[in-house]
Amino acid sequence: MKQLEQKIIEEGIVLNENVLKVDSFLNHQVDPQLMYSIGQTFAALFEAQKITKVLTLESSGIAPAVMAALQMNVPLVFARKRKSLTLKDDLYTESIFSFTKQEESEVTVSRKFITAEDRVLIIDDFLANGDAALGLAKIVEQAQASVAGIGIVIEKAFQPGRNKLVELGYLVHSLARIASLSEGKATFVADPNRTDRSV
Amino acid sequence: MKQLEQKIIEEGIVLNENVLKVDSFLNHQVDPQLMYSIGQTFAALFEAQKITKVLTLESSGIAPAVMAALQMNVPLVFARKRKSLTLKDDLYTESIFSFTKQEESEVTVSRKFITAEDRVLIIDDFLANGDAALGLAKIVEQAQASVAGIGIVIEKAFQPGRNKLVELGYLVHSLARIASLSEGKATFVADPNRTDRSV
Repeated sequence: MKQLEQKIIEEGIVLNENVLKVDSFLNHQVDPQLMYSIGQTFAALFEAQKITKVLTLESSGIAPAVMAALQMNVPLVFARKRKSLTLKDDLYTESIFSFTKQEESEVTVSRKFITAEDRVLIIDDFLANGDAALGLAKIVEQAQASVAGIGIVIEKAFQPGRNKLVELGYLVHSLARIASLSEGKATFVADPNRTDRSV
Repeated sequence: MKQLEQKIIEEGIVLNENVLKVDSFLNHQVDPQLMYSIGQTFAALFEAQKITKVLTLESSGIAPAVMAALQMNVPLVFARKRKSLTLKDDLYTESIFSFTKQEESEVTVSRKFITAEDRVLIIDDFLANGDAALGLAKIVEQAQASVAGIGIVIEKAFQPGRNKLVELGYLVHSLARIASLSEGKATFVADPNRTDRSV
């Protein structure tokens, strides 16, 4: 998605070879017009998948995911992160290790909101090692629902997340695929087969 | 906002005289079309205020706030909640006591994203005792910016939050004002002066 790559070039801050900071438009300050375009792009990319629900993880996934859900005219569910839980009866739970925060948290979704008939699109802001997306996929599978696709705003293509997801058979679309963060700048994957049909 | 009141009547769960659960459309599962209408309504209500930025608190505020920011064509900033902080140099911070969770958390906004010229619209999902809105207002004031308004999705009008905010001189608009949660059902404030111009 050219508009997103442009924004990353203009406003992204490369902190080191592994960390890209995009807090001016995605995960602290948010550009709502860009989120709307991102939602349109996800809706187009996953149009054939007959999505019935969008699932994301609080907090940074919510803005792009609610725009995708708006365009697809389906509900959004955001999974909640908690340190620990005592009562779990009515919840699906998975442990997710955060690469950014270097800590494990428990992720929960109420059983009411994902059912066996659902075709779920998982959306997240970043894909690095794939732990968040895999944790959400496990929750969908606990519900005996289908993971109809995984939509990522920014993929760090030099980390193993995408391969793990693809090997498990998931359909993955990332709107920006970063090949490298070396020498203080982001370069993107030149992908002849990119399925990104957006601007 | 009639559409919101109707949704509360249909799907809200009154847990006791103080607690209304709206996790089927606002703070766990999210109805994106309703959020879009909420964004339109906030944009209309605060049109005269020349808003330059929307500020909310993760996570439940993000969906309605990003839709309001979209309609107003301004950036959204979502404040982050943290348990404790060591490095605070580039952050505005305030302590906020959560009525729902009965715990205190530190709320932070990067100094980069609110500046003295900003006219800030604070948006939150609930108004009860007003602690979250007051904490966000203090952050705006730390930045020497102006609180141009406070927009609330659901106000528990039987709790003191609104009065505290109004006494401090803030312009407050709530889209649904709950007069009571007694006898297991939500009843709304019949307000002859309601400024809600929406459907």
